[in-house]
Amino acid sequence: MSKEKYNNKQLYLGIDGGGSKCRAILYSNEDGIVADAVSGPANVLRGIEKAQQHIIEATDTALAQVGLTPDFKANLIAGIGLAGLNLEACMTEMKRWNSPFKQSFYTTDLHIACVGAHGGKDGAVMIIGTGSSALVCQNNKLIEMGGHGFPVGDAGSGAWVGYKSIELALLVLDGLKPETDFIKAICKHYQITTAIELAQAVSGFTPTEFGRLAPLVVQHAQLNDQHAVNILKSGAEYLSALATKLLQDKTLKLSLIGGLSPLMQPYLSPEVVGQLKEAEQPPEVGAVLYAQQQSSACAVAI
Amino acid sequence: MSKEKYNNKQLYLGIDGGGSKCRAILYSNEDGIVADAVSGPANVLRGIEKAQQHIIEATDTALAQVGLTPDFKANLIAGIGLAGLNLEACMTEMKRWNSPFKQSFYTTDLHIACVGAHGGKDGAVMIIGTGSSALVCQNNKLIEMGGHGFPVGDAGSGAWVGYKSIELALLVLDGLKPETDFIKAICKHYQITTAIELAQAVSGFTPTEFGRLAPLVVQHAQLNDQHAVNILKSGAEYLSALATKLLQDKTLKLSLIGGLSPLMQPYLSPEVVGQLKEAEQPPEVGAVLYAQQQSSACAVAI
Repeated sequence: MSKEKYNNKQLYLGIDGGGSKCRAILYSNEDGIVADAVSGPANVLRGIEKAQQHIIEATDTALAQVGLTPDFKANLIAGIGLAGLNLEACMTEMKRWNSPFKQSFYTTDLHIACVGAHGGKDGAVMIIGTGSSALVCQNNKLIEMGGHGFPVGDAGSGAWVGYKSIELALLVLDGLKPETDFIKAICKHYQITTAIELAQAVSGFTPTEFGRLAPLVVQHAQLNDQHAVNILKSGAEYLSALATKLLQDKTLKLSLIGGLSPLMQPYLSPEVVGQLKEAEQPPEVGAVLYAQQQSSACAVAI
Repeated sequence: MSKEKYNNKQLYLGIDGGGSKCRAILYSNEDGIVADAVSGPANVLRGIEKAQQHIIEATDTALAQVGLTPDFKANLIAGIGLAGLNLEACMTEMKRWNSPFKQSFYTTDLHIACVGAHGGKDGAVMIIGTGSSALVCQNNKLIEMGGHGFPVGDAGSGAWVGYKSIELALLVLDGLKPETDFIKAICKHYQITTAIELAQAVSGFTPTEFGRLAPLVVQHAQLNDQHAVNILKSGAEYLSALATKLLQDKTLKLSLIGGLSPLMQPYLSPEVVGQLKEAEQPPEVGAVLYAQQQSSACAVAI
């Protein structure tokens, strides 16, 4: 029944793939989102084949939600936004993929977030999640800033905020900075009492593991703990500078995306806050809009 | 002939094992250092069996230098200083080793550096190499500070200085800080022109790889490049605070050790510089002195 329902309608696939998961939605112009599924990570920097495998897994799960079989992939027009596709070599390799979809349009996760946030119109986005990065999209031109990866980039992100907290806690435990309740809470969190134990507990931490500390930092910043406030202020200073540079000489709006963004927003500069707007649609819908724009552009070109 | 020469003399083995190599010297009270060999890494945090294997390899090579066969290990009294033995769990496991030596005395690489630097007397050391850490040794009590590992600790070290330079270069390439000759030199060094290319070039860098940039930072600091100077000053500020805390209420001298220490010394606070002295002996000789102290203490105890 479902199969017949969708046989005469074009279904779009929207893929939002990042370092922690891959989300797939099925979308029709008549009904909007009809299926929504999640699989494993799809950051192409951590293996392009694994990313492709997780795209297919999430898609098959989404198809099953509306009673469609995996072979229906051949009918889908796909917009695929993946972390890591800003690197030319990765994009080139990705485009070589003999994908199972009718049409595939690839871009970055940041770009589909921007397309979604501004409903396909010009605008800018800044992601403040485990990582941080920003993009402006104007007259079909993209300018990306930040997002260079932890630890050298991604300042103000969850990973960075967690990392800075550990760095500070080690200074406190070595007697080089005064202790505060925030530092006591970090020690309690890891069940440690000395600097050596803390260093051991966080040895080899991934950005995601550092990022898990971000809620504790925010909680203590809200209690006005000076160490926690300083870390968030220092991260926000970078993010404000990034946003200001991105929007200079432009009258575009900026949407914040990512788990840490509502928590970081109060620390951004008033100028940046003045340019903010709520995202209209999530990144996976942005991926569908991107596919529709590209596929109609192709049709015009033909 | 050699065998006979050493059959009636006690030979000591001094081992200095770290993240990049393991050095073994053979030492007699009459002749001083009679052999000196190097093998692979012996940081117990990266595998205790590998460390033990490299200790044996370096020892066998040293023995061969004076015409002795591997079975001569059973005659050696060994002082063994290894990175990572500050962690209790690692020390416990190390002491379980059925070592091939007549006697084995284990401690940290930092401790043997301190024993060597002060000829077995009380004093303090600060290592500024790929990593950074400090130790004071007074009345047979050891207090260690810093050295918590990159990226959360080891400020002011080669790895940290290189890392800070990349972090800054990315800000410059994103247009958030002014360009200087130092930043141009970093771009030339990695043969890149954009922030994305630089982030890609350093992705997954180890502390050692970041540390390779330290000479370039020092070179440009000497040319008074403000970015390079600020990085070294900021690292030295931490190292000065560490040394000041370590030596507070003590009249001990401090020796600096490690490849970056002569380059970082001009940026340390005058108070710290006033307490410096040249190291009397290198860490591997410190390991021998440690073995002699411990073995005579054992003899007294018997």
